[in-house]
Amino acid sequence: MNAVSRRASTLPISAVRKLVPYAQKAKARGVRILHLNIGDTDIKTPPVMLARLKTFAENPIGYAASTGVPAFIEALLVYYHRLGYTFLKSENIIATVGGSEAISMAFFATCEIGDEVLVFEPFYSNYQALALLNGVHLVGVPTYISNGFHLPDAKFIEKYLTKKTKAILISNPCNPTGVVYTQREINELVLLAVKRNLFLISDEVYREFIFVDRPHASLFPYMKKYPENMIVVDSLSKRYSLCGARLGVFSTLNESLLTGVTKIAMSRLSGGIIDQAVGAALTDIPEKYLNEVQEEYKKRRDVLYKGLSKIDGVTLSMPEGAFYCMVGLPVKNAEDFCVWLLESFRENNETVMFAPGAGFYNSEGKGVNEVRIAYVLNTDKLKRALEILAHALKAYPGRRKSA
Amino acid sequence: MNAVSRRASTLPISAVRKLVPYAQKAKARGVRILHLNIGDTDIKTPPVMLARLKTFAENPIGYAASTGVPAFIEALLVYYHRLGYTFLKSENIIATVGGSEAISMAFFATCEIGDEVLVFEPFYSNYQALALLNGVHLVGVPTYISNGFHLPDAKFIEKYLTKKTKAILISNPCNPTGVVYTQREINELVLLAVKRNLFLISDEVYREFIFVDRPHASLFPYMKKYPENMIVVDSLSKRYSLCGARLGVFSTLNESLLTGVTKIAMSRLSGGIIDQAVGAALTDIPEKYLNEVQEEYKKRRDVLYKGLSKIDGVTLSMPEGAFYCMVGLPVKNAEDFCVWLLESFRENNETVMFAPGAGFYNSEGKGVNEVRIAYVLNTDKLKRALEILAHALKAYPGRRKSA
Repeated sequence: MNAVSRRASTLPISAVRKLVPYAQKAKARGVRILHLNIGDTDIKTPPVMLARLKTFAENPIGYAASTGVPAFIEALLVYYHRLGYTFLKSENIIATVGGSEAISMAFFATCEIGDEVLVFEPFYSNYQALALLNGVHLVGVPTYISNGFHLPDAKFIEKYLTKKTKAILISNPCNPTGVVYTQREINELVLLAVKRNLFLISDEVYREFIFVDRPHASLFPYMKKYPENMIVVDSLSKRYSLCGARLGVFSTLNESLLTGVTKIAMSRLSGGIIDQAVGAALTDIPEKYLNEVQEEYKKRRDVLYKGLSKIDGVTLSMPEGAFYCMVGLPVKNAEDFCVWLLESFRENNETVMFAPGAGFYNSEGKGVNEVRIAYVLNTDKLKRALEILAHALKAYPGRRKSA
Repeated sequence: MNAVSRRASTLPISAVRKLVPYAQKAKARGVRILHLNIGDTDIKTPPVMLARLKTFAENPIGYAASTGVPAFIEALLVYYHRLGYTFLKSENIIATVGGSEAISMAFFATCEIGDEVLVFEPFYSNYQALALLNGVHLVGVPTYISNGFHLPDAKFIEKYLTKKTKAILISNPCNPTGVVYTQREINELVLLAVKRNLFLISDEVYREFIFVDRPHASLFPYMKKYPENMIVVDSLSKRYSLCGARLGVFSTLNESLLTGVTKIAMSRLSGGIIDQAVGAALTDIPEKYLNEVQEEYKKRRDVLYKGLSKIDGVTLSMPEGAFYCMVGLPVKNAEDFCVWLLESFRENNETVMFAPGAGFYNSEGKGVNEVRIAYVLNTDKLKRALEILAHALKAYPGRRKSA
């Protein structure tokens, strides 16, 4: 009979949400789940943003400009100017329906169907589905837990370039590895992109969450010198705990890209004007908010790293930023283990949920014994989750003998 | 240097928004513009929906389920059940970021790259860009002002089917023509789709805006008999004046489609939870709200039709529903005329803005002397707009001698 298209049926299910049906069944049995599978944080949204909902007075709720509500764009501009990127103008910023839409627009606007974009494995699993939705093929360049998932040198990266490569996409600080690229690494990548006439797309939604003693190496400072090549993707979701308000940003100085992305934005008419009114409050947030959030995530990172390091057979590198890490587990298959945690394990009626690692690679067979952990719960809950993990690994029948 | 992709650069600019730069310049010169170019209505959003913003208490603002916030889905279900479609279950409904996203998902989920979807010309201009974003080719089947843009018979439509045709897409009541298809027309289309194993996608966002004495011929009643073929696209934007809250719906009983569309929805994580909280109030709206809105649009339709009929050389058919009509003007080129209205004409410092008709066709050369008029302003403003149009047509140097 009439079936869904092949391209839709073969879209990967998000690694982050893949096991949700198992979680739902566990919850139906009354099991409490500590969710470390998704970057949906427990940190509160700034009250000044929620207050905007109480005073929202537009009626009727009409379309926004396709590229964003002016007040929201202006607030973003103030934010970027405070960071020092004073060359940015409002026309360089397009508000998107979440960072996801900005990534999707970047794929469509930089690539023809069948073109390639380089990503560093492991990479944010939704990049894969968003690429496929736009007919783009992601090519994974390997990075390794042994050096904290830092970038290989340009010579190594160049081996993965073909005639079809149109862009390189990075997440910095990185979801899922927690690596924060150094200025030297970004510099080398910029030079490579310019030399090979590629777009460089930097997803910087975790910009403020850095736990190492060096500043964030943003792509923005390179925009003025290389206006044609540089694209920054951003989002308020993680910074201000606004995942469910869809507030993303596509930014470039490349005028042909801006024209193209504006046309994509016009095709879906407008983003949400209520969400963008909330977003426009970002300039009213007290400075200490982000400092406190950063402190809190650093505390969690420390608890997680310390706890994981004590568990026999677990491999990880110290996460430098964002709020994720990729962790090797002493199991044959981490997805089976994650399912088992939801289906068959509980301790005081509690269990823990991770995202299976293989979904963050597109090279066959990689990441099979890894999970991504999102440290989005408070330290008490994290400690409890670590306890459960340690006990579960001992009880798990599919444990690998030696790590 | 590094340029935007060909496919992005060749996306059409929305006919509805194409002339916005001219409008901005006119406004900068202090000219007031009566906007009949876009379906952005002046009718108020129901207060009970806006009231939800005052009591919105979720903090943090986390992701919604990819397929929609349960309370919103349940409210939609109550709405559809009240309409008599009691066979619908919550799993048949996927909440989307506006009707636009539902259309985009339908293209991706029914077609491979290069496949074809039949539409009836003139058609809603954004269908074109959304099709191109999904690598789908729209094939226009002509309909004519002379019979009120009603559908040709199945034999005629079949001539436009090829091996690549995967779906037929209709807007009913129709944007941009205002036609409301009869039960007989829908019936014939359903049988054709089933016979040829095609998907039939019915965009029913104007369902309640019908000014003829026959009920809406929805696709929902056909879903039970032909669960594999039928897709309904819906949106709260027009019904409750919520264009800037992105609240669309994709609905089908086809399980493989539902699985595919769920994966597309997962790729962008979630829609907006604030917008969906507003949408969930739809069951609290007093029944008289939609009756009053329908009455108001009918009044406007009558004023518009009467007024346009009096203008020499104007051709139109009585709009039966939605809040649009396609109108032939006694000018050589309607886009030039629309630009001239914004650049060179004013009366008491006022002018009027329409959407050029050619953007609603994909057959070269069609609709060149037509405009789409959205009657989204009150009757006083509409009368004034008609006055301006009549005077402008007299003053316009590019007027055609005989209509």
